[in-house]
Amino acid sequence: MSARTKVTLLAGGVGGARMAEGFAGLDDVALTIIGNVGDDDVFHGLWVSPDIDTMTYTLSGLINRTQGWGLSDEGDRALSTLRTLGADTWMFLGDRDFGVHIYRTERLRRGDRRSDIAADIATQLGVTSRILLPTDDRVQTRVHTDAGWLSFQEYFVRDRSRPDVRGLRYDGITEARATAEAIAALATADLIVIAPSNPLLSIAPILGVDGIQATIRSAAAPVVGISPLIGGKALKGPADRVLTSLGHRPDALGVASIYGDMLDAFFVDHTDAGLGSELARLGIRPVVSDILIAEPAAKARLAREILRAGLSTEAQPL
Amino acid sequence: MSARTKVTLLAGGVGGARMAEGFAGLDDVALTIIGNVGDDDVFHGLWVSPDIDTMTYTLSGLINRTQGWGLSDEGDRALSTLRTLGADTWMFLGDRDFGVHIYRTERLRRGDRRSDIAADIATQLGVTSRILLPTDDRVQTRVHTDAGWLSFQEYFVRDRSRPDVRGLRYDGITEARATAEAIAALATADLIVIAPSNPLLSIAPILGVDGIQATIRSAAAPVVGISPLIGGKALKGPADRVLTSLGHRPDALGVASIYGDMLDAFFVDHTDAGLGSELARLGIRPVVSDILIAEPAAKARLAREILRAGLSTEAQPL
Repeated sequence: MSARTKVTLLAGGVGGARMAEGFAGLDDVALTIIGNVGDDDVFHGLWVSPDIDTMTYTLSGLINRTQGWGLSDEGDRALSTLRTLGADTWMFLGDRDFGVHIYRTERLRRGDRRSDIAADIATQLGVTSRILLPTDDRVQTRVHTDAGWLSFQEYFVRDRSRPDVRGLRYDGITEARATAEAIAALATADLIVIAPSNPLLSIAPILGVDGIQATIRSAAAPVVGISPLIGGKALKGPADRVLTSLGHRPDALGVASIYGDMLDAFFVDHTDAGLGSELARLGIRPVVSDILIAEPAAKARLAREILRAGLSTEAQPL
Repeated sequence: MSARTKVTLLAGGVGGARMAEGFAGLDDVALTIIGNVGDDDVFHGLWVSPDIDTMTYTLSGLINRTQGWGLSDEGDRALSTLRTLGADTWMFLGDRDFGVHIYRTERLRRGDRRSDIAADIATQLGVTSRILLPTDDRVQTRVHTDAGWLSFQEYFVRDRSRPDVRGLRYDGITEARATAEAIAALATADLIVIAPSNPLLSIAPILGVDGIQATIRSAAAPVVGISPLIGGKALKGPADRVLTSLGHRPDALGVASIYGDMLDAFFVDHTDAGLGSELARLGIRPVVSDILIAEPAAKARLAREILRAGLSTEAQPL
């Protein structure tokens, strides 16, 4: 074990980025994030990786904090030109953001690995935590709605998560091979954390990559999750509705059930303390805390609690 | 002959764009421009077409008039992000400009013709004159300097036209096929005009495309050129130095000699009235005028004079 505790965080979405910030703020933690590439899409011929970018922009401090995504001091000149030229511009892409997408696309065209590109972007933007991709292959989350199958961005951005989700699939995931870095980060972690992200839209496209789940299960590190729902409501995004429509309980217990015995402990909000005994019945140690982490101090405090809970004797339920 | 006089203008660079503006401002003229694609280059994986863009931006009124190139109300967020990411950013590309390059590259990737893309961009940006490409094939002007062969943009933008030009070549020009539109625009023109552009850097990559020069020579329309030099000095750009170093006279006569008997008439500045008899000896009718056309009124006035001179009896020297 190194001087710093090695935390490997599976994370997607704004909740995932906030959790990452919490750990990134702890001096005694070496944070590695395995992000979600299922949201990746191509706009105007450019490879856009919204979930990885949200993580990168958050950890670099360049994020637009009001929105929770995109860059601060952003412009829309490139997109407005594309609109004038008749392009479909429902996906907001800022001028600074375009710089990232242009860079990424050019590196990809040159044959560089997607994960090397993501790592280099993060480094150049000043991120000191490691941002890994679960796979260098293409995985695309597809959302089945009454209007047919949509890409994640069509569902989430264009249609504002309004359509009922009838089904999900992760195109390419069966053939996708995990990156050696992601496998190593899980195998050598001191603690594995599943962020308070949407389990089906953000975490499933990571866990579904061949080798990821098996490595988590065989890893020496304890696995701690945090509920993305408080009192059955998603703090951000459509998690509660998606869980319901796909036959899961729209609460912390529903989320924990999806991860099942992969989890050693699961953080739920005080509001959900009543779910503790049911979590324990699933073999998952419940940890009740304040899991609302909008503020920087709250993020660091929760990260510290997760660290403590994860690294303490695991058999002891709260 | 249609109600409007069909003028087909061969043009490149800022001088070419200014001349185009002059004709575009005349209600009784239907203007078709054949532009220069020899300056095209790929930056950050995007296809950039600076000479065609300068023409498009000028005729749409979106040009940055202070610079003479690029768009007004431009930003540099995308480029500064690329710089942060470690990309080579000596070529200034503004945010609005990036929108155009992204659009063009995506259309090209889809297999659209370069000339259709250029025409659509011009139309969408409000240009009513037709902007044609001499060819849909790739032609790249290469500049031989003491530091080796450079692309045009490396020579012109990166190295600010400082290196002495030892030679020029136009890669791909032998294989390039003229577009049907360019051939038709020359064959059916009432007047063919060669703009006050750099003859070797802007006009030669047009004239060199198979079929262009032959069509001009066999066309019914008179051919009128305008000197890009006044008193042996280029108004903008390195034309005088390039002419000298490649063994041409750095003056209006040197330029007219390059075009030779393709020209019926050639406009020179009052300063160069003394060259008239030498032009006449070449079989080219000299027209002495004020060819400095920075102001809108001057552009329209010169365009009108060219129209009159070109369409008057050709044999009559001034």
